[in-house]
Amino acid sequence: MDKKWNKIRQDFPLLAEKMNGEPLAYLDNAATSQKPRAVIAAIKDFYEKENANIYRGTYALSQAATAAYESARKKLAAFIGAEADEIVFTKGTTSAINLAAFGYFRWQLGPGDEIALTAAEHHSNLIPWQQVAKATGAKLVFLPLDKKGAVDLAGAEKVLTSRVRLLALAQVDNVLGTEQPVKELAAMAKKQGALVLIDGAQAAGHLPVDVKELGSDFYAFSGHKMLAQTGIGVLYGRRELLEQTRPLEFGGEMIREVSLTDASFKPAPQKFEAGSQNVSGAISLGAAVDYLTGIGLEAIRDREASLGRQMAQGLEAAGATVYGYGGGIVAFNLPGIHPHDLATALDAQGIAIRAGQHCAQPLMDWLGVSAVARASAAFYNDESDVRALVQGVSAAKEFFNGTR
Amino acid sequence: MDKKWNKIRQDFPLLAEKMNGEPLAYLDNAATSQKPRAVIAAIKDFYEKENANIYRGTYALSQAATAAYESARKKLAAFIGAEADEIVFTKGTTSAINLAAFGYFRWQLGPGDEIALTAAEHHSNLIPWQQVAKATGAKLVFLPLDKKGAVDLAGAEKVLTSRVRLLALAQVDNVLGTEQPVKELAAMAKKQGALVLIDGAQAAGHLPVDVKELGSDFYAFSGHKMLAQTGIGVLYGRRELLEQTRPLEFGGEMIREVSLTDASFKPAPQKFEAGSQNVSGAISLGAAVDYLTGIGLEAIRDREASLGRQMAQGLEAAGATVYGYGGGIVAFNLPGIHPHDLATALDAQGIAIRAGQHCAQPLMDWLGVSAVARASAAFYNDESDVRALVQGVSAAKEFFNGTR
Repeated sequence: MDKKWNKIRQDFPLLAEKMNGEPLAYLDNAATSQKPRAVIAAIKDFYEKENANIYRGTYALSQAATAAYESARKKLAAFIGAEADEIVFTKGTTSAINLAAFGYFRWQLGPGDEIALTAAEHHSNLIPWQQVAKATGAKLVFLPLDKKGAVDLAGAEKVLTSRVRLLALAQVDNVLGTEQPVKELAAMAKKQGALVLIDGAQAAGHLPVDVKELGSDFYAFSGHKMLAQTGIGVLYGRRELLEQTRPLEFGGEMIREVSLTDASFKPAPQKFEAGSQNVSGAISLGAAVDYLTGIGLEAIRDREASLGRQMAQGLEAAGATVYGYGGGIVAFNLPGIHPHDLATALDAQGIAIRAGQHCAQPLMDWLGVSAVARASAAFYNDESDVRALVQGVSAAKEFFNGTR
Repeated sequence: MDKKWNKIRQDFPLLAEKMNGEPLAYLDNAATSQKPRAVIAAIKDFYEKENANIYRGTYALSQAATAAYESARKKLAAFIGAEADEIVFTKGTTSAINLAAFGYFRWQLGPGDEIALTAAEHHSNLIPWQQVAKATGAKLVFLPLDKKGAVDLAGAEKVLTSRVRLLALAQVDNVLGTEQPVKELAAMAKKQGALVLIDGAQAAGHLPVDVKELGSDFYAFSGHKMLAQTGIGVLYGRRELLEQTRPLEFGGEMIREVSLTDASFKPAPQKFEAGSQNVSGAISLGAAVDYLTGIGLEAIRDREASLGRQMAQGLEAAGATVYGYGGGIVAFNLPGIHPHDLATALDAQGIAIRAGQHCAQPLMDWLGVSAVARASAAFYNDESDVRALVQGVSAAKEFFNGTR
């Protein structure tokens, strides 16, 4: 078993780098993942052998590039249990949520309507809804969280009234790693006639996702957090909803007919992909899907949960306060030490974690802290990284407490 | 001289590929450029050695990635004579124009106001303004073109009245290759109090650009047309205009303060860059700028104009109708033969050109044709490509006319 994961680790060239002269323990995977050779090679190969503009060329090179781009769309569809024409390529999760917010919900909601979120949402699944609320007169309501940061189902039932037209929440929280009971909440929301949007940024590539089984009407995620390039992501939308969603950008390739004064648009997903797209980004995401499914999403989920548990236990034993953990993510602090100082101390030891508010200011308020440290492992991390983190935190504690 | 360009050609691995068993003559550079090894290596190196999320990390790897991203912004600023905080990274030209259209002009214009364009605009510089006109009650007006597709200055003066609040036009036309008298038109528009937006998609990377000297208030261009990755582009905006421009996407990293119900935003350019950005795209664009300035933009302009002239002359001699040419771009047809059929015939001979409406349907109406063939050379093309094109068109003519 360990042999298998050791071999997988070798696929990620960046993990062999040093940081500040120390072997790198990269534990900021919830911010962005590292990339396996297969993905880097797919990008390089595209630019060396296949690069051409898509859709528009009558020549073989352009047709090959178009086929590669559309094949990536099909892979993404299969990856989350959708159809290819329900997959819109975007710049990332943030663009995807904004497209659903301003292309669809902006035109569907009005005064008296409610949008249900949690206080644990990433800013990208909060600020767009604040803006939609301002524009439409709809109101934000928040599902109560239990002590572990999971939505309290009994409490949720009270908030999810027939006034709620949209439930928008993260499948996996980016600070505490909490996996929300999305299926149950989606069923509850649907009973009241609401639609459901899932922010899958921390879920896609970490556990098996089936958008139909989850009951999500929209599902958003990023490529760069699941082994692919920066600047690419996906908005899944049910076909009939995408048909009603307005494009937010206008330009070439999304047009059916144009005169000097007016234009008509192609059907989804093309109407949302105006202008030249991030072709190599989409291809890299297809390659990432191939790589991830090759390992298996169940195996990845178990592996990351095991590493997360080991980190949480080790950190608690080392005297840290652990606010929560789930999957490969652990949120913690060392009493009396600012997490930025802790992160800086770990940096000097080659350990990369993130400290701050994690684009989740309301969750910080809910936790009653100004900031936390977050370590996040991916399946390609191993026990040596866990050990480095725990030892690094112990050393930092001694240093800051003046016992060393 | 030829030796220098021969050496440069060797920098582009894709040009050594075959297409349909024939040596590739890639003459669709106006659609997308090929990439030199230096750019491909910059992408690969980033993912192998430097990849981390930017801004948010307290560790060395993230700080290096942030520095690389911001260094790219500085390079882009220097490339067009702007300041770094006037450079917004976008997905491409289309996103850049849409940001100016819906973030700024959407809120500035009203009934009675006019937006001046030409009939030669790419759809990406037409449809956004149609939508802004619909939303605001403003009206589109069009500058007259002379026989070569250049704006007629005397005619323009009549259209550019004090009602015109915005002049938006392409610096170089994507079908005829016409370089517009942008400086003169911008001065004319400014005298009337209008702002000027330049679509630089076909100009940036092909000739020296200085946004201040041109008199542009906004300037938009794409990375993938100037040697960089797909999915990256730039909106330049004068600082005081960017300050007044509203963000169109909301999420992490563009936020100053957030509560559950409201948020305030950072200054430009960060307020326009919500969520994780296309970091490797920006870095590749910085590497492309280094490569292009290493050769020199004047030398590139001369080289491409020479190749374009040779293609136009050769095509006319071969019996083609040339509608116009400029820079490396030539628009033409073979009498009696649909350009798609011509492009297909050339494809079989390894020659990549584009046929169709080129996202410029109104220009097709103006030319009085349903479609044209377009060959577009870049500085890394050479006389062998020109020869292949001219011979290929001659062979196609004989074939379709049944003389072979």
